[in-house]
Amino acid sequence: MLKDLPSLEQLIKVLQQVPYLASKNIYRVGSYFLQLDQAKLEHFCEILLEAKSKVIPCARCYTWRETDRDCTFCSSIKRDQKTVCVIESWQELIAIEKTGGYQGLYHVLGGVICPLDGIGPDDLTIQALIERVDKEGIKEIILAMNQTPEGEATMAYIGRKLRGKELVVSCLARGIPVGSHLESIDRLTVYKALSERRPF
Amino acid sequence: MLKDLPSLEQLIKVLQQVPYLASKNIYRVGSYFLQLDQAKLEHFCEILLEAKSKVIPCARCYTWRETDRDCTFCSSIKRDQKTVCVIESWQELIAIEKTGGYQGLYHVLGGVICPLDGIGPDDLTIQALIERVDKEGIKEIILAMNQTPEGEATMAYIGRKLRGKELVVSCLARGIPVGSHLESIDRLTVYKALSERRPF
Repeated sequence: MLKDLPSLEQLIKVLQQVPYLASKNIYRVGSYFLQLDQAKLEHFCEILLEAKSKVIPCARCYTWRETDRDCTFCSSIKRDQKTVCVIESWQELIAIEKTGGYQGLYHVLGGVICPLDGIGPDDLTIQALIERVDKEGIKEIILAMNQTPEGEATMAYIGRKLRGKELVVSCLARGIPVGSHLESIDRLTVYKALSERRPF
Repeated sequence: MLKDLPSLEQLIKVLQQVPYLASKNIYRVGSYFLQLDQAKLEHFCEILLEAKSKVIPCARCYTWRETDRDCTFCSSIKRDQKTVCVIESWQELIAIEKTGGYQGLYHVLGGVICPLDGIGPDDLTIQALIERVDKEGIKEIILAMNQTPEGEATMAYIGRKLRGKELVVSCLARGIPVGSHLESIDRLTVYKALSERRPF
């Protein structure tokens, strides 16, 4: 059907590459852009290109920073410069910052070790993390990978690399999510919550 | 947190306006665009702007057409020019064309009557549809609105407008979806399937 609409077909194709756009919604999103005012669409493109040119990864912690400003975290005098929370990507940083409960630095790995996808330790910023530990005298590393097999494997790898160094390596607590019912939680999570129980 | 990243904040804001991008995925989609090659991002913007400039609604049936080609449907000699399927938007056309079971024309309303959203009959292409019926000698109108209260109200409105004209007005069959189990279908659908049962 789209063969008579080559420009629209092209649009659908580039939208299909955007993550988290469900294929069933692609046509609707395509229509959204076609129905936008010309000025608004141009504004959208300008914003995209401006963000691309101005937002870069911090050379130290790999979180996003703007070219004309220092990294929010690395340059903050209020934050604990000796504690580093290691995360897969910038999105996890947002989740942690929203809690308001963390005042240390970050280190973005840029993914997790996943041999099936051809991602090894050298494709991530693990070596840079080890160097930071030595150079900056880090006292605690919090491994905050996602709870996936790849996330756990990556934590194990980094844990091994840090062995013998004088610092605390911790990871996020696993257990029953706040506000949830025991009966609706999967077996493995209940098992972890039991076996990793804490004094009340 | 984003106040130190004004360009990224702007990007997140424009992405928040795109429909069907869940807010929990916005940051990930933002990162996707930042991580794209400069050339690919420019290509993305070019495609968007090109589609915007080349794809317009057909003046007769309001489906999308390219500026340098006739409307696929209106110009087709293979399609039945006397049957018109009325749909809310272009996405429904894709769903119907995928079946391969329809060979008539279309008429895109551009939405449904929804007083709460301030959308009345005059905001849609209903008047143009009535004029088409008179001018083109349409023999059948298929009302294929979505099965929502607004969709049904719009069908009722169009039905009333077409009363007294010499043509068949039909709507899509309601009932049990193919491949599904009776016990998992909602009560109202089972009721409709029963009350609108057909000879076997």
